[in-house]
Amino acid sequence: MKTYFYNKLSESELIGLTKRPAVNFEETFKIIKPILNDVKTNGVNAVIKYAKEFDLSADKAGGFSGESILVTTEEFEEAKSNVDEKIKNAIDTAAKNIKRFHKRQTPKSYEIETIPGIKCSREFRAIENVGLYIPGGSAVLPSTMLMLGIPAMLAGCKRVAVCSPSKSGKINYPLLYAAYICGIKEFYKIGGAQAIALMAYGDKTILKVDKIFGPGNQYVTAAKLLVSIDPDGASIDMPAGPSEVLIIADENAVPSFVAADLLSQAEHGSDSQVVLLSNSEETVNKIIDELKNQLGELTRKNFAEKALENSFSLITEDLDQAFNFSNKYAPEHLILNIKNAKKYIDKVYNAGSVFLGQYSPESVGDYASGTNHSLPTSGYAKTFSGVSVESFMKSITFQKLNKEGLKNIASTVETLAEAEGLDAHKHAVSIRLKN
Amino acid sequence: MKTYFYNKLSESELIGLTKRPAVNFEETFKIIKPILNDVKTNGVNAVIKYAKEFDLSADKAGGFSGESILVTTEEFEEAKSNVDEKIKNAIDTAAKNIKRFHKRQTPKSYEIETIPGIKCSREFRAIENVGLYIPGGSAVLPSTMLMLGIPAMLAGCKRVAVCSPSKSGKINYPLLYAAYICGIKEFYKIGGAQAIALMAYGDKTILKVDKIFGPGNQYVTAAKLLVSIDPDGASIDMPAGPSEVLIIADENAVPSFVAADLLSQAEHGSDSQVVLLSNSEETVNKIIDELKNQLGELTRKNFAEKALENSFSLITEDLDQAFNFSNKYAPEHLILNIKNAKKYIDKVYNAGSVFLGQYSPESVGDYASGTNHSLPTSGYAKTFSGVSVESFMKSITFQKLNKEGLKNIASTVETLAEAEGLDAHKHAVSIRLKN
Repeated sequence: MKTYFYNKLSESELIGLTKRPAVNFEETFKIIKPILNDVKTNGVNAVIKYAKEFDLSADKAGGFSGESILVTTEEFEEAKSNVDEKIKNAIDTAAKNIKRFHKRQTPKSYEIETIPGIKCSREFRAIENVGLYIPGGSAVLPSTMLMLGIPAMLAGCKRVAVCSPSKSGKINYPLLYAAYICGIKEFYKIGGAQAIALMAYGDKTILKVDKIFGPGNQYVTAAKLLVSIDPDGASIDMPAGPSEVLIIADENAVPSFVAADLLSQAEHGSDSQVVLLSNSEETVNKIIDELKNQLGELTRKNFAEKALENSFSLITEDLDQAFNFSNKYAPEHLILNIKNAKKYIDKVYNAGSVFLGQYSPESVGDYASGTNHSLPTSGYAKTFSGVSVESFMKSITFQKLNKEGLKNIASTVETLAEAEGLDAHKHAVSIRLKN
Repeated sequence: MKTYFYNKLSESELIGLTKRPAVNFEETFKIIKPILNDVKTNGVNAVIKYAKEFDLSADKAGGFSGESILVTTEEFEEAKSNVDEKIKNAIDTAAKNIKRFHKRQTPKSYEIETIPGIKCSREFRAIENVGLYIPGGSAVLPSTMLMLGIPAMLAGCKRVAVCSPSKSGKINYPLLYAAYICGIKEFYKIGGAQAIALMAYGDKTILKVDKIFGPGNQYVTAAKLLVSIDPDGASIDMPAGPSEVLIIADENAVPSFVAADLLSQAEHGSDSQVVLLSNSEETVNKIIDELKNQLGELTRKNFAEKALENSFSLITEDLDQAFNFSNKYAPEHLILNIKNAKKYIDKVYNAGSVFLGQYSPESVGDYASGTNHSLPTSGYAKTFSGVSVESFMKSITFQKLNKEGLKNIASTVETLAEAEGLDAHKHAVSIRLKN
């Protein structure tokens, strides 16, 4: 973990630090395009071919045959009966908090009379067919199932299909239990680019979805990007990249807490990025010492160590400089381990989810505080929100004019239509007021 | 305009009718990729080169030199003083209605305590840098300026840059006046793929934007799609295609009104699509007769005639069949010219903007009723909303735990972290509760 001093960097060096390690999507696009095209043409058969090639461990090859990519009712029942009681309770508690927080997001309709005789309104509708991708590479993630499944359920999506890879031909109990409590009945044991293609293009027997949600590795992300610009494909929640955290810590922060937070992000994968900002050089040094202490104890030490190599700390003159940098970086997760953290909320412009004060580690938001953990990475927090109930809905506007209303607006519309050279637009108004 | 009978079509023939005439984006991508790369590398110089090649009429070539792609304060003043009074008033009225309707969209923050000691909240922030594209090919569109500029202003975007092509080296007065009342100060006389590239990648002297809005031809749309999947690029409002309307008319509809509405959509361009659904064959025949009568009078007759060739009517058994088809088609504009239209609102699942009853022609929504006319086309209404204040904002979630709150959630987080094999996530909680 390199250390920089804000005041010693030029503006362009600072901007350089806000850039994530480059992902060469062009190369990844080349690899996955043939997979997408194959699935588009050959459907499930192609999907199974790639699943066997990429996902199945050698001794289980052939686990997918016929319809068995679909989790059966029996498998759901088995998971419900056999899931560890402690894990089941934890999933239930997390789900309850996530529901509580997300319920408030259901958007409200409204109607107003813009001028007499013209009533305009807006209503929301659930997206009918959605697909959720739950990664399963280096960790199986029931929490992601809740973070996507619960808002889909609250939005009222008619059909929710799920894809998650399986090396063994089975899906683990906690993940299936989490799917069950989200009301999921359609769960495919498929991962990777081929899963995204299956959801985007469908098959004779599997209806395509309209929008795909969920994080994934670079193949999954690249596949989502490509289907999102294909008119035959599907919309996507957001372009996702490797997970990241930025921590702003002042001299009041407990170094061991901050180090633990940095590591909890770093263990996600070797491509994760963690950034530490502080107005106190002494605090930074203590935190770096703590990192070394804590690193030894971790199962996923190798991932974390590599992630730390892509990471840096930045010593600023004051907290304003820190917030300035943070907003330019636009982190997925932002931890404010500073005194009176809540007072600084207005200084946060670009971030996915924010953790305030010393008792708010990122992991509470990853699992159970109630906020969503599907968040914009790679600087996309400048324009994207985390997944919410609204992500599973869209709005429709309505207008109802009576004859009086049309009269009141007629000359405005006719004048503008004429100014834009659009006769027929004008005529559609005039013809109604002739008689 | 071909006529089909719903009951004589197979399910796959019906689905076939919901597909828009295919756009071959692959070919368009090949044409514009070099333009995007050139602008990414060479900035404004490349932009000006393409503007001269594509936009300027031969006798004005060289109109763009040095900084003159930027509209000057003098040009804004000139437009304000010289814009036709009648047009000025129409723009003012339209702007007032659009503001009135959109003001209600400003999203609200909320905070809840999910469990004792855990406070979660959500707040909204304006996207700081946005770019608006206003097409100027076959029609100059001050209305689109209002539809994008007003929600950007209401959202509170810090910087709003606008691009619109100019064949003559000047921007017309109504468009500049509309920009002026939206508070726009940064307006570039640039159109096409090169304008999208300029906004997405910026230049030494022009800051890149974070999100690009606005409709355009297939080159503009393809450029928006490509920059939206480039990590160095920008987000986009939605993938836009040719404009379209679907009208459901029953036996009470006045045929001349419906014909006028079909033509007001058809005149947009030869690639526009208009669809007529009715449970009355007689009504359809009368409307088709009316089309022929009204077509002769139009300035843009050629566009409209070609658009009608891509279009069709569909005779259904009843209104339920019509709504079923309409939701599968997911039209940009939906006109319900049926008795008691408002009663059918709940049957509308997928549409951009809806016009209810016989006195609500589409052109009122195109200009002045108050709703937005930047709407999802090509079936994207299944997943996208029209442009709104929220399109210019994103949300951030916050969580603040006190020690009690962390204790209350600790075992849930620790259990789930363990189940997912993420040690450090667990440790970030435990370490805080040790002492």
